Amino acid sequence: MRRWRFSKGHGTQNDFVVLLDRDNTLQPTVEDVRWLCDRRAGIGGDGLLRAVLARHVPEWDGDPSVWFMDYRNADGSVAQMCGNGVRVFVRYLLDEGLATGPEVPVATRAGLRPATVLPDGRIRVGMGQVAVGAGSVRVTTADGAAFDATPADVGNPHAVALTTGIEALDLTHAPRWEPADAFPEGVNLEFVEPRGERHVAMRVFERGVGETRSCGTGTVAVAAAARERLGGGDGVWTVDVPGGRVEVELSGDEATLTGPAVLVAHGEVTLPGH
Amino acid sequence: MRRWRFSKGHGTQNDFVVLLDRDNTLQPTVEDVRWLCDRRAGIGGDGLLRAVLARHVPEWDGDPSVWFMDYRNADGSVAQMCGNGVRVFVRYLLDEGLATGPEVPVATRAGLRPATVLPDGRIRVGMGQVAVGAGSVRVTTADGAAFDATPADVGNPHAVALTTGIEALDLTHAPRWEPADAFPEGVNLEFVEPRGERHVAMRVFERGVGETRSCGTGTVAVAAAARERLGGGDGVWTVDVPGGRVEVELSGDEATLTGPAVLVAHGEVTLPGH
Repeated sequence: MRRWRFSKGHGTQNDFVVLLDRDNTLQPTVEDVRWLCDRRAGIGGDGLLRAVLARHVPEWDGDPSVWFMDYRNADGSVAQMCGNGVRVFVRYLLDEGLATGPEVPVATRAGLRPATVLPDGRIRVGMGQVAVGAGSVRVTTADGAAFDATPADVGNPHAVALTTGIEALDLTHAPRWEPADAFPEGVNLEFVEPRGERHVAMRVFERGVGETRSCGTGTVAVAAAARERLGGGDGVWTVDVPGGRVEVELSGDEATLTGPAVLVAHGEVTLPGH
Repeated sequence: MRRWRFSKGHGTQNDFVVLLDRDNTLQPTVEDVRWLCDRRAGIGGDGLLRAVLARHVPEWDGDPSVWFMDYRNADGSVAQMCGNGVRVFVRYLLDEGLATGPEVPVATRAGLRPATVLPDGRIRVGMGQVAVGAGSVRVTTADGAAFDATPADVGNPHAVALTTGIEALDLTHAPRWEPADAFPEGVNLEFVEPRGERHVAMRVFERGVGETRSCGTGTVAVAAAARERLGGGDGVWTVDVPGGRVEVELSGDEATLTGPAVLVAHGEVTLPGH
């Protein structure tokens, strides 16, 4: 019987199970990850964040003294980065006394991500580059509503539909897009409405997951697409998601994401024998 | 800032946050319950089980030495009983050394419920009386499939539709029933298919909740309705639910429910200030 210390936390209700594994010895299997993220049989989360000292991560060839964020999706698959996850990860390192702010660099599979703890407790993370694509795709939701959506790449693929009345959309089933081969590996779909100057609200349907309450890369894609389509230029964009509010700062093709991160519980979990 | 010890567990994936409150002093508000059961902002569960020594419960006038199960739905409302919840509650009392088996009577708002820990670890709970109603109601799911359903009462209202191909049903949206005034306070809807002699499989749409992975009173309603409609008589009925398998023993209008109960995590939760 395996008993592991864990924490649970969220950033704008994108939530995570966090494990400390300083020496990289826990080796959670795909089945372990799925079970930990199972909301009824296990703890529950959109993903797992495992904190490993970078010097114990063979694939990391940067600064060995930082913490490496091993991020797994709830289905057990390995992911490169997660904008909301990095904030929760940094909050965890601070709460556990594993790092001191305000600057906390985090090693990820997408490279070193700089994070800064702001005086108000929010955390700002460098999200790297965002690229808005030319042209558009046609997105149709389950209730038959159709939209022109702008492709955007934040290391992962997005398509952003600017519209109104996003509250009423049916996102209980996966929307479709045309041409179907525009995103051979799937795409995250954002539905966005303007709220004011450099201020938008969005809902998101994440590929392989369904509607979620927040998606960090999605907020960056949305800000960049809105800048292109609505104007407003560089600067701070406020993005309301169902789980809260974040700010995306755009400077050319570089983006930072600022938002809250909360740890709600700490404890010990007993994994089932497999 | 309030920090409470908690556990999380489930019975056939009907899952609960468990609090120990021996002296009845925690007084969780509706908002606290909602937050604790929130799967993304809080811990997550279908409901909250609070363990209070019965002598500290003013509304309890029975044996003062037993434990009272204060059961709350995830929306914060007070409920009388929960068949899967009682098993998790008993498992919690045993694990925490608050009770010794094999007999563990539990005080509930529906009266004293006897529970027995079996040698294989499963827990049997007396569910009281079940009554199958005369006639039928017409139930229509979101995908337009229609069924004749048998009313059944297990302290709460159910309607049981015997059919085949339950895997394919669309329960993402609430089914409707006719006549609409048959259940003025709503009803739990079960869709059941035979699997063998005194063996059925079911899916359930719980009123005010949606599809769940298990419903204890629902399994009792299903066994009683199947006995009436399929024959098979008194004895042990095996009921497969999406979250596992339970056994319902019928003896006239009395029922017991036997199934697994698992505690997966223990820890400390930090409640937000309200």
